Amino acid sequence: MYEGVVQDLIDELGRLPGIGPKSAQRIAFHLLRADPEEVARLTTVLTEVKATIRFCTRCGNVAQGELCRICSDPRRDQTKICVVEEPKDVVAVERTREFRGTYHVLGGAISPMDGVGPEDLSIRELLLRLADDTVTELIIATDPNIQGEATATYISRSLRGTGLNITRLASGLPVGGDLEYADEVTLGRAFEGRRPMHE
Amino acid sequence: MYEGVVQDLIDELGRLPGIGPKSAQRIAFHLLRADPEEVARLTTVLTEVKATIRFCTRCGNVAQGELCRICSDPRRDQTKICVVEEPKDVVAVERTREFRGTYHVLGGAISPMDGVGPEDLSIRELLLRLADDTVTELIIATDPNIQGEATATYISRSLRGTGLNITRLASGLPVGGDLEYADEVTLGRAFEGRRPMHE
Repeated sequence: MYEGVVQDLIDELGRLPGIGPKSAQRIAFHLLRADPEEVARLTTVLTEVKATIRFCTRCGNVAQGELCRICSDPRRDQTKICVVEEPKDVVAVERTREFRGTYHVLGGAISPMDGVGPEDLSIRELLLRLADDTVTELIIATDPNIQGEATATYISRSLRGTGLNITRLASGLPVGGDLEYADEVTLGRAFEGRRPMHE
Repeated sequence: MYEGVVQDLIDELGRLPGIGPKSAQRIAFHLLRADPEEVARLTTVLTEVKATIRFCTRCGNVAQGELCRICSDPRRDQTKICVVEEPKDVVAVERTREFRGTYHVLGGAISPMDGVGPEDLSIRELLLRLADDTVTELIIATDPNIQGEATATYISRSLRGTGLNITRLASGLPVGGDLEYADEVTLGRAFEGRRPMHE
């Protein structure tokens, strides 16, 4: 319906995740009117990202070189690995400033419905990293949903008998939340995981 | 928090309309993993759009040359102009196949709250197009909201006494809709605009 190249742009934008045809149209017209420099900045950074960003050969996080910023930082505790699904989860954990170890990014979670099995994730790479005895604690921080739980269970079973200290992030009530609005599964988990109060 | 250029990409994406920080992050990681060709297609079409797309010097619609496809089509009826706010409204009207005249794209609607006055729209250009007596009918198809109504009123007042046939698109119940769910303003308009039934 639009002049050829405008429709092409709408089509390309519509392929991005979470962008429907209406949003694609809205963004396309925004870009049509936008400052040429704004569009140039976007195309430059897109090209640059594809040219320079790789995945860390050790942990699978995004990296600008061979290793990511965290793996190449000698101050990080090499005895602890926090296992997450995606690079964005690394950022989420980093924001807490609670963890000074390293990460392992699986690249997703086990989900038979979506055809994702353990062999599609970097679980083998994780087991290889654990082969020497440097690592003493594994903190599994996959998402608290069915896929994340399945992945956590799979990994912890694969490591049964290794004597490695394996933990899973606590489930429970979100801080600042309201008990009344908690779903029953979360509230159940909060009961299961209840902790003694230290006064 | 991310490696420099990844954060730059997230920032640039976050500047697009309707894309919040979470969506920007999701799209950025999608692009990181995407086929280099997919990203290349997007950057190429972005560059092409900015290089080739202009706005029609006559009607303000998107155009790949001096005039848009509609203005340069000799089969279109030059005596009728349909006035719309945005190029996407041209596409919406074209889809109905009801109108074979030409368009005038205002580039928005009068909205004092957003600091948009009549002088920010191409109303002067519209009046100039009406200066010779080619055009006999003006169909005002601005949005049926406060800004669109204000714009329609402004234009029709500017043309008072010219003898031009000026109409406004009908407001009423959407076809396929349900009377019960119509808001009272729409239902009121539907009453006002009631038409005799031809049997």
